[in-house]
Amino acid sequence: MITNSFYFNLASGDEIEQYAKKVKDEYQSGKIGYYHLPDTSKTLIDDIKKYEATISDIKNIVLVGIGGSSLGVKAIKSMLGEKKRKLYFLDNVDTNTFNLVCNNIKFNQTIFIISSKSGTTIETITLLKCILNKFNPSDLSKNFIIITDTDTPLERFAIKNNIKFYNMPKNVGGRFSVLSAIGIVPLGLCGYDINLLLDGAKVCQDRYIHNKNNEIIAKAYHYATHRKADINVLFSYSDRLKDFNDWYVQLWAESLGKKHEYKRIGRTPIGLIGSTDQHSFLQLIMDGVKDKTVTFIKIQNSDNIKIPNISLDELEATDFVNNLNLNELLNAQCDATKMALVQEGLSVDTITIKHLNEYSTGYLIYYYELLTSATGIVLDINTYDQPGVEIGKRILKTIIKARD
Amino acid sequence: MITNSFYFNLASGDEIEQYAKKVKDEYQSGKIGYYHLPDTSKTLIDDIKKYEATISDIKNIVLVGIGGSSLGVKAIKSMLGEKKRKLYFLDNVDTNTFNLVCNNIKFNQTIFIISSKSGTTIETITLLKCILNKFNPSDLSKNFIIITDTDTPLERFAIKNNIKFYNMPKNVGGRFSVLSAIGIVPLGLCGYDINLLLDGAKVCQDRYIHNKNNEIIAKAYHYATHRKADINVLFSYSDRLKDFNDWYVQLWAESLGKKHEYKRIGRTPIGLIGSTDQHSFLQLIMDGVKDKTVTFIKIQNSDNIKIPNISLDELEATDFVNNLNLNELLNAQCDATKMALVQEGLSVDTITIKHLNEYSTGYLIYYYELLTSATGIVLDINTYDQPGVEIGKRILKTIIKARD
Repeated sequence: MITNSFYFNLASGDEIEQYAKKVKDEYQSGKIGYYHLPDTSKTLIDDIKKYEATISDIKNIVLVGIGGSSLGVKAIKSMLGEKKRKLYFLDNVDTNTFNLVCNNIKFNQTIFIISSKSGTTIETITLLKCILNKFNPSDLSKNFIIITDTDTPLERFAIKNNIKFYNMPKNVGGRFSVLSAIGIVPLGLCGYDINLLLDGAKVCQDRYIHNKNNEIIAKAYHYATHRKADINVLFSYSDRLKDFNDWYVQLWAESLGKKHEYKRIGRTPIGLIGSTDQHSFLQLIMDGVKDKTVTFIKIQNSDNIKIPNISLDELEATDFVNNLNLNELLNAQCDATKMALVQEGLSVDTITIKHLNEYSTGYLIYYYELLTSATGIVLDINTYDQPGVEIGKRILKTIIKARD
Repeated sequence: MITNSFYFNLASGDEIEQYAKKVKDEYQSGKIGYYHLPDTSKTLIDDIKKYEATISDIKNIVLVGIGGSSLGVKAIKSMLGEKKRKLYFLDNVDTNTFNLVCNNIKFNQTIFIISSKSGTTIETITLLKCILNKFNPSDLSKNFIIITDTDTPLERFAIKNNIKFYNMPKNVGGRFSVLSAIGIVPLGLCGYDINLLLDGAKVCQDRYIHNKNNEIIAKAYHYATHRKADINVLFSYSDRLKDFNDWYVQLWAESLGKKHEYKRIGRTPIGLIGSTDQHSFLQLIMDGVKDKTVTFIKIQNSDNIKIPNISLDELEATDFVNNLNLNELLNAQCDATKMALVQEGLSVDTITIKHLNEYSTGYLIYYYELLTSATGIVLDINTYDQPGVEIGKRILKTIIKARD
């Protein structure tokens, strides 16, 4: 389904085995919830399906959430295209975006999913207020769903207003939460096959946690120890992967940017789209400082247009791609760029996805979550917290209260 | 119109004066064409306006181009919203995107603008072939426009097929070309005020080149000499600036990633959107390695929604933002994040745009182009070439020819 080929040496031996054991220990400890979502989220599916059967008058789902509450869902929507219902996102307190979404829908044909792990995310609750003000519903129970941790203010708000709510496991961090209710509720209601999504993740879990395949650990070891290349580029050859890149950026940046005692540690993620960004960022990777690793993603089979066998007067020099499929040209560009980087001595690997569907998407998500956990373990940091973003929230309150 | 405030010390004195002189020399040499576009592009406006008056049956403009031929136009469209005609982009050989655009339009209501500086860009010419194959027009003269350098194969193709064409000055590089025909033709035909766009750029030119304001030079000097912080983050607080970020990334990466004799030099650009990416990348900037500078962009006045003065049961802790405008909240978040970063000792500056319109957009584009030129001059590199991307193009031909 998904294969990974490397153009740098993967370490092996005792050290890798030890880190593999640490990952497995973390998995088995039960403390980090995302590892188990391929199983635990299965228990939600019946309820989502039953609920979905009752909302035949609903045409739109609007996901109101920010960061981990939206990036993963957006990634999956973009990868798989639109299904039964339209899926919109409100993930910023931006007037223009709010109007673009809310002026485009009818309230009685819409369910707003209010997603916030903490239940007090200022952007999300503010957007909820703006939605209530705009549509002024008399009853909140029909057009809202809430997804939050157990026993948050938002859960209590849901209970008091008779709003259907789902919980995510407390020990699942926001950026690792797309396979929890956070993702599978909106995706399930929109008609994506959430069973297959979880099955794909489960296959990845089996492969790398239960079947002693240490490839991810060895790759993580390379990222964690190859200090000179602390910028990690994901170069995805499909417009459909643009939002997946953004999800990866959050996962990697927020998980691996940490203070370790007094030392600052970080791996900087960058998402690029091929071939477009061959005409943008590539020059810097080729000739700039060798501080980058590059992972290419390509899709083997996709809907395809054949490049017609037309020879245009004066433009015959471009005819060498005639009769290829567009996707073959795209993948050949991926291979050519990869070879150019290998010649410059950069660490490069390629992830090849056979078909882009729920199954491979679930696998790819779990793959990147495992890679992040493993890299954090080798770096010896807490992969799952985000202490650096709290101070800004406190300053925000001070600034706004000072205005009064 | 646009102001810039700094939270790091800007150098002054003789060295800055010397670099300012070098920038002015480069400007006066006439060798680098983009500097003069605010004047030279004015000569195109009459023709564009006359042509625009003849296409009342045209509803869509599809810009077919990649890299410098599309990123700047996309940025301006996103900043200013839609005008008289819809503007679509084909900037990748991606089947899904091709179908999304081409299945959405009627051929006889559409002008395709084929933009390629070299006139042989493989993606662009391939897309042209796919368009011709899909719509099979008998006459190319009505629904196509070509923009290219003088005397390219694409220009000759245009002449032979009686297609209207515009040239860009030879000495304007692709990533510096948005104020040339590359940008002002599609924007003018779609109803954007291209006169104002050029006027805004001219004001910036006056300020920084003619009026001895060395602020940009001093800022460039900081980026070029502050070696430990060689990642430059643009943190834009508006969804409308997402494509501007992508334009900046190309400009910065492709201009400043260079080999200088045997030494590799580079500044790595990253574009973020606030407040969304406060929930993503910010943790890495706060606690990760201090290898980043951050420029914030905020918009002072924008269309606005007032946060209603609603107190939701259980969610009263979020009421401190009630009665603000959404944009005030967004800008307060920008200020709070900036203060948090200043406390960590990072180099931070803020660009404040009073109103987002053609005038300020032209100014901002020229500002970033000047900053790039100045940084390249301090780094002592060739800012305007891109030798690193050629090898991939040669390998691509080898790969595809080997398939036969």
